[in-house]
Amino acid sequence: MKAVVLLSGGLDSATALAIAKRDGREVYPLTIIYGQRHHAEVDAAMRVAESMDESTHVVNVPALGELAHSALTADIDVPKDRSVHEMSAGVPVTYVPARNTVLLGLALACAESIGAREIWTGFNVLDASGYPDCRPAFVRAFEALANVATAPGLPWFVNAPLIALSKAEIITLGCSLGVDYSLTHSCYDPVAVDPALAPSTYRDRRWEACGHCDACQLRQKGFVESGVPDPTRYA
Amino acid sequence: MKAVVLLSGGLDSATALAIAKRDGREVYPLTIIYGQRHHAEVDAAMRVAESMDESTHVVNVPALGELAHSALTADIDVPKDRSVHEMSAGVPVTYVPARNTVLLGLALACAESIGAREIWTGFNVLDASGYPDCRPAFVRAFEALANVATAPGLPWFVNAPLIALSKAEIITLGCSLGVDYSLTHSCYDPVAVDPALAPSTYRDRRWEACGHCDACQLRQKGFVESGVPDPTRYA
Repeated sequence: MKAVVLLSGGLDSATALAIAKRDGREVYPLTIIYGQRHHAEVDAAMRVAESMDESTHVVNVPALGELAHSALTADIDVPKDRSVHEMSAGVPVTYVPARNTVLLGLALACAESIGAREIWTGFNVLDASGYPDCRPAFVRAFEALANVATAPGLPWFVNAPLIALSKAEIITLGCSLGVDYSLTHSCYDPVAVDPALAPSTYRDRRWEACGHCDACQLRQKGFVESGVPDPTRYA
Repeated sequence: MKAVVLLSGGLDSATALAIAKRDGREVYPLTIIYGQRHHAEVDAAMRVAESMDESTHVVNVPALGELAHSALTADIDVPKDRSVHEMSAGVPVTYVPARNTVLLGLALACAESIGAREIWTGFNVLDASGYPDCRPAFVRAFEALANVATAPGLPWFVNAPLIALSKAEIITLGCSLGVDYSLTHSCYDPVAVDPALAPSTYRDRRWEACGHCDACQLRQKGFVESGVPDPTRYA
């Protein structure tokens, strides 16, 4: 069974891809450049796919970065060193308006065009600190939309197998499936190593994580709680 | 009240924009380049907006044209001289998978970023010859999605004021609002006039309609039935 898998290059989507492969899906990884301030995620997505003997289809949506106002796409400071309590209070500035709606829309276009009826994502609500478009209600609403938005066929299935897991549980599961988390990237505000010398291929391009943004903190906490050594390079 | 208006440059969206202005909305026209085979629609959208003392925000989604397999984005023949009966039998090859989901998703990103809670479209189901993502059920499903996909706030309103009107009714309504239909473009397969000499600005760029695709035929029928002279230049 064919499945389009949204692959951002983060820890969650890498694990979702591994689960889809474990479950026998013929996977079509899809990586979407939407105006992120840096290329680290896309580099990671390409490395992660390659490590699982796949290649990810990278496509470009400059419109999203241009229209959606967010600390991930515009020149707004990424918050640092927030407590988990602060993270869970309201929608953070790193929320990109309607991002997951657009990403799922493109996954739907891809899936319908190749004859798939499944879209897999790494959406996760527990550690997602206030992102409205990572919740189960969002996933179900998109599935309902897909069923009326497309040509008649089998029902759509939008799968978010990690949605109710903690980061530690995701890491434990991914390790059991052989995910190499050293290839993944979570940081919102990474530093390019030797930017002047940065090679043009993703294989050699290196990034260091800031260690202080929400994504870094949740990732670090996940490795600590899972007991798995954190392979992340911090600046 | 702010409203993002999806403006394709066709007859329907031009009319929707005029209605939004009549209804006192502070309009934000949005034109999306998604890999159409020609630029005629975007040229028309810019001219239409200008004729209503607005300017349309043009953004680019190359991902959609790359992922979605359709006669409007790929090298597939556009069907010609089909009867209305043939047009209404099934989903046509000019259907672009998930196009309206992606376009509404981007309108949602824009609207949430500027503090609007309304999105207006020219979707029309009567003459839409089998496009699943022009139906009322699609509009309502997207509205339900928007309400869970975004930061908490007022309910979203996705307005499709033309959805149940015939092309003739749309033209009659638009004429009463002063819409200049000579500026709009409907043809799926237009011919550039003097392509070698084509100027770079939309004001002077001229296109002729084929007169035989589904869009041309429905448009011609609409003008005939409304009794309004058809201002379209045919090849």
